[in-house]
Amino acid sequence: MALIELSVQGMTCNHCVAAVEKALRAVPGVQTVAVHLDANSATVEGDSMDTEALVQAIESEGYTAQVR
Amino acid sequence: MALIELSVQGMTCNHCVAAVEKALRAVPGVQTVAVHLDANSATVEGDSMDTEALVQAIESEGYTAQVR
Repeated sequence: MALIELSVQGMTCNHCVAAVEKALRAVPGVQTVAVHLDANSATVEGDSMDTEALVQAIESEGYTAQVR
Repeated sequence: MALIELSVQGMTCNHCVAAVEKALRAVPGVQTVAVHLDANSATVEGDSMDTEALVQAIESEGYTAQVR
């Protein structure tokens, strides 16, 4: 089990949080997701996750992201 | 056919716009809805609409609204 923390820029409201959560949950290997609006961050837990796929999932929703 | 314009406060992104649009479309009598993020406004067209129901639909999504 791995824990990956990402910075996420561009989220302005809880709808944004929900969109990022949904996108991350769809990435293969992801088991749990926590997105924090105030901290501009996301924490993802899972197995055999591709960090680039996590970043791309967030960016496909219109936000920018990087692994911390 | 009546046209009602509302001021909407609190929308920050296109997810907010979509939430307000969806809420307004569910109000009885509403036929067309246009929500403008930049102008903080919504224009609703329809028949026999209850303006208070329009305001309440928006406020139930967490925004504030008033008829213009």
